[in-house]
Amino acid sequence: MIKVGIIGSTGYAGKELVKILLNHPEANIVFLSSNSFDKKKFSNVYPEFEGIMDDILIHSEKAADKFSDIDVLFTALPHGLSFNFVSQAYESGIKVIDLGADFRLKDKEIFEHWYKTKHICESLLDKAVYGLPELWKDKIHAAQIIANPGCYTTAGILALAPALKYGLVDPYSIVIDAKSGITGAGRKANPSLMFAECNESLKAYGIASHRHTPEIEQELSQVYGDRIYVTFTPHLIPMQRGILATCYGNLPTFCTQDEVYSLYREFYKNAPFIRIRGEFVETRFVKGTNFCDINLRIDIRTKRLIVTSSIDNLVKGAAGQAVQNMNILFGLNEEEGLL
Amino acid sequence: MIKVGIIGSTGYAGKELVKILLNHPEANIVFLSSNSFDKKKFSNVYPEFEGIMDDILIHSEKAADKFSDIDVLFTALPHGLSFNFVSQAYESGIKVIDLGADFRLKDKEIFEHWYKTKHICESLLDKAVYGLPELWKDKIHAAQIIANPGCYTTAGILALAPALKYGLVDPYSIVIDAKSGITGAGRKANPSLMFAECNESLKAYGIASHRHTPEIEQELSQVYGDRIYVTFTPHLIPMQRGILATCYGNLPTFCTQDEVYSLYREFYKNAPFIRIRGEFVETRFVKGTNFCDINLRIDIRTKRLIVTSSIDNLVKGAAGQAVQNMNILFGLNEEEGLL
Amino acid sequence: MIKVGIIGSTGYAGKELVKILLNHPEANIVFLSSNSFDKKKFSNVYPEFEGIMDDILIHSEKAADKFSDIDVLFTALPHGLSFNFVSQAYESGIKVIDLGADFRLKDKEIFEHWYKTKHICESLLDKAVYGLPELWKDKIHAAQIIANPGCYTTAGILALAPALKYGLVDPYSIVIDAKSGITGAGRKANPSLMFAECNESLKAYGIASHRHTPEIEQELSQVYGDRIYVTFTPHLIPMQRGILATCYGNLPTFCTQDEVYSLYREFYKNAPFIRIRGEFVETRFVKGTNFCDINLRIDIRTKRLIVTSSIDNLVKGAAGQAVQNMNILFGLNEEEGLL
Amino acid sequence: MIKVGIIGSTGYAGKELVKILLNHPEANIVFLSSNSFDKKKFSNVYPEFEGIMDDILIHSEKAADKFSDIDVLFTALPHGLSFNFVSQAYESGIKVIDLGADFRLKDKEIFEHWYKTKHICESLLDKAVYGLPELWKDKIHAAQIIANPGCYTTAGILALAPALKYGLVDPYSIVIDAKSGITGAGRKANPSLMFAECNESLKAYGIASHRHTPEIEQELSQVYGDRIYVTFTPHLIPMQRGILATCYGNLPTFCTQDEVYSLYREFYKNAPFIRIRGEFVETRFVKGTNFCDINLRIDIRTKRLIVTSSIDNLVKGAAGQAVQNMNILFGLNEEEGLL
Repeated sequence: MIKVGIIGSTGYAGKELVKILLNHPEANIVFLSSNSFDKKKFSNVYPEFEGIMDDILIHSEKAADKFSDIDVLFTALPHGLSFNFVSQAYESGIKVIDLGADFRLKDKEIFEHWYKTKHICESLLDKAVYGLPELWKDKIHAAQIIANPGCYTTAGILALAPALKYGLVDPYSIVIDAKSGITGAGRKANPSLMFAECNESLKAYGIASHRHTPEIEQELSQVYGDRIYVTFTPHLIPMQRGILATCYGNLPTFCTQDEVYSLYREFYKNAPFIRIRGEFVETRFVKGTNFCDINLRIDIRTKRLIVTSSIDNLVKGAAGQAVQNMNILFGLNEEEGLL
Repeated sequence: MIKVGIIGSTGYAGKELVKILLNHPEANIVFLSSNSFDKKKFSNVYPEFEGIMDDILIHSEKAADKFSDIDVLFTALPHGLSFNFVSQAYESGIKVIDLGADFRLKDKEIFEHWYKTKHICESLLDKAVYGLPELWKDKIHAAQIIANPGCYTTAGILALAPALKYGLVDPYSIVIDAKSGITGAGRKANPSLMFAECNESLKAYGIASHRHTPEIEQELSQVYGDRIYVTFTPHLIPMQRGILATCYGNLPTFCTQDEVYSLYREFYKNAPFIRIRGEFVETRFVKGTNFCDINLRIDIRTKRLIVTSSIDNLVKGAAGQAVQNMNILFGLNEEEGLL
Repeated sequence: MIKVGIIGSTGYAGKELVKILLNHPEANIVFLSSNSFDKKKFSNVYPEFEGIMDDILIHSEKAADKFSDIDVLFTALPHGLSFNFVSQAYESGIKVIDLGADFRLKDKEIFEHWYKTKHICESLLDKAVYGLPELWKDKIHAAQIIANPGCYTTAGILALAPALKYGLVDPYSIVIDAKSGITGAGRKANPSLMFAECNESLKAYGIASHRHTPEIEQELSQVYGDRIYVTFTPHLIPMQRGILATCYGNLPTFCTQDEVYSLYREFYKNAPFIRIRGEFVETRFVKGTNFCDINLRIDIRTKRLIVTSSIDNLVKGAAGQAVQNMNILFGLNEEEGLL
Repeated sequence: MIKVGIIGSTGYAGKELVKILLNHPEANIVFLSSNSFDKKKFSNVYPEFEGIMDDILIHSEKAADKFSDIDVLFTALPHGLSFNFVSQAYESGIKVIDLGADFRLKDKEIFEHWYKTKHICESLLDKAVYGLPELWKDKIHAAQIIANPGCYTTAGILALAPALKYGLVDPYSIVIDAKSGITGAGRKANPSLMFAECNESLKAYGIASHRHTPEIEQELSQVYGDRIYVTFTPHLIPMQRGILATCYGNLPTFCTQDEVYSLYREFYKNAPFIRIRGEFVETRFVKGTNFCDINLRIDIRTKRLIVTSSIDNLVKGAAGQAVQNMNILFGLNEEEGLL
């Protein structure tokens, strides 16, 4: 059994992680930490867990004392707050999977530019592996620190990586128009996230400035082999969960829809959580699952490839992917506890 | 008082039209027609109108006998069903505003290609004026037949017309990613439109094949002065009403956000229903109104203009715009009954 | 023109009041006050009003200086905060309509018991008229202070008043099970009111302890002619607006559904906003209107009367009713500006 | 492994059953039957199951030929359609769990009165055990035919059984006001169940006439020891899943909330899926689970007990309870595959 600790267990990603791990046949939760709800029962914060997970939440300072009792630490904190925990875990010799943003960007400057936050763990940046198993399974296998991808990022990269790898689209033409359910905005009591303010409405936000942009660019640049830039626009949708990314790229040379489907199927042939679909995707088809569904269309008239990908932002976009990474780190079947 | 008849009064656009006209100080409803609910009271179909509009619905065949009693006919029917009513109304010498698609495309072939329907009123095509007042107010003023624009179309064209007019964007780079509430799909009891099937989910549909595409292209081509093609992707959002169109175009030469704002303000200086906003737009801000809100952003990194526009699909996207056209046709203040 | 001031104009009831008054042919808004958004434009707080209502919000202290400029003051504040404004307005000789709870309960002790707040305006309690026009139109006509009813209260009283008046139900058997959309909970950034916490869920709250209970009892006791008690349970429903009250009472003697319908129709024969319906009521039928729809059913098997009433909590349950009261106060048609 | 067949697998209850059984460590699905989607893949009907359950659906006539291959048959059909399948399964000697209504009511006349349908399997009525494990676990254990309870029924009976058993409430005073998500209305393309018609609205329906009424009365009468009648009102709520039943009964003698809690805890001490809660219940806390959460309140002023119970209508209200029954029938732990 893998002994697990979670710091930041009462955000939405943390909660989903608890839920998945409780059903994981090879994992055992050793501690749950939350500074906001220190000393309360987890089931006080999330009453649906009454009788299921009634452990007392501990402060993150106490959590750090228990690293010797665990095999892997999950951190699920706002950006800028994971540095110390990750570095302590690293020094303790345990594995750590960070669901936050602190180790995703390889370039300290880019991190500091987009997050307006000093990066105080530069030395660990090259130890951290970007935990998108569909791209980097081998590296993940050998890593000690995993930077678990962002939710929009996961949907965007998985939609476009094959197109860039196989030169299907002009890398400088990419537009990613992504739509997310409202849990994606986190659990802060922000007035604009109240039911009465965001139900029955729809908006774009963070246009040309969302922090998932450099993360998408970093990964797609690596797949493509050269630095590329993308236009990324996130939207908030009045539903709990789910992301749909509608991605556009110009076709430099004509190719048929069948050819594109073949190449995508080839690219993802060893990726059990990718479902390439002939039919249009809908977020409800992946709700509560670790799947990423992908549909492909060519707009012959405008010579563009249109890829739609959908994930559950809290599962494949956060906690499920983290557990997928854990499975790989510990030599388990990638799908263990996730079907 | 303008005497009004409506054929197709029990679809969602028809219902909205009734609601607006009942509050219009210069309009009088003479008859409401519906073949599906012939001989029922309008308030039996829409109980919210009990005590407000209890007229008996008449069959469209009977409606045609009453053209001499009215000044203007509204038709709000599925495509292919308005030909005869429009041509009879035309011959009767009354004005007609068609909320359907039958007279929007000037080119019979393009209509028949996209709608898979024979166009049996070719002779009237050049009599019909495309009823987007922000572009063609003068022509509307003098017209007898108005082809009222589609909902997505309205949002897309209003977002991009100034950019094309002033050469702000490369006309061959345009992507329109539009999102609509579910009333946009009409009132058919389609299984995929049931609450349990479309609540808490999100999908793209009609990718590279939606019928509003040629309509957008026709109008934007005219504004630009040459034939252009656009990629248009519609999405269905779990809410009642509202459209948000997120529109992307490459900037051939650099320009500042301020310059773009100035040009848009200039373009729409006589358009009382256009609100150019510094803040991001949300569909709730235009719900139940005839406004089109527009936000402008430049993505300096990728050299793209991103325009978001939002309308209420049933008001500015259908019934409100139809009444705006009626106001212009009859020499009233454009805003009459719409504020 | 009636000159109007509003204190507390940026809560949901205040906003609705602004919307209604802007469309009222006989009212003119002189000032809007809000302490939370002092010196901002109203349309900054509610962007849907851009170009419609861009007045600068003033602090309530400044508002008090302007009482000589207005004919009627509306106060829409949390309980305990209206005392001073109402008493100053009273002394200034202007009419005042309080949408809050401070003057609804005639009995100071009952107020202080349920609201845990000292009542510092006892002397005005018998000057204030409970503003439910369907019961007290004559008194309202002659009043200077109107205590505008609560939302649940309106739905509950209107459903049961005729039954109690005509002795249709045992007054000690009454159960009111009421359901409200989430705007009913106000505009505070309460974590439990976030979209992600209350969407796709349903709960009862304030069981046997909600503050609208004594208000319902006060009014129904008066209609019945003796002190009665009711069980009242509010519920929160994942939608923006609307209240449905399902009310139960035992039939002391048998009567037919037709008899009950006749008596209700008789009782409300002069009430233009009451619609007695044969069909079941739905909150969408009254959305955005000042109507209260009522359906009546007898459960022969259990000898109970079941009355369902529905209103829009922000209109008939708050701002619409306030304007209805204003119309009566100023001798206008009760329906002015409300249809 | 228990070999399982399902007839009626493509309704919402059937789908949930498939989902639960796929995760059940002791169950194996042998066939899935659906007449509406005969010869299609299950994952064509429910695309979320692609790669998870791609079996071809068979016609129910073919299903009947396979009874020798299974240990237990689940039927999930509209009322009146299970008679033959249940009787054939019975004769084949296999166990059968009917999620429909055909065997729930012991009294043929009552069935025929409420369902307006001839009961053609009277001889099996006394073989069928009402499958509410919290009341009849011992009988279920020994049964061959299980009549799986209705959704509202489950919530209502579980809320009130202890109160009746211990004489806490006057049995002739009971009112059950129940609220359900929209999947409770099934998967027919009924116009009134379209998103645009039932989103953002709320209604009572089937007042004094819903078919779950006699089922609740049958079971509560048995618990109480004498024939009782209840008033039951169902409501439709704009959300996918969940039932909240708010139940009212007069207290014949005073008792404290603590006493009531003790008695409820005693009654359900061996019921692993009942959670008696101090805090108010919300349907989201039981979503996707087989739990029934119960809260108890005494209204001292009116001398009433108010019990709120919540379940997931598709799990504890249908498929989960069916699997709980299967577990008991086959001597497994009641919770197997359900946590």
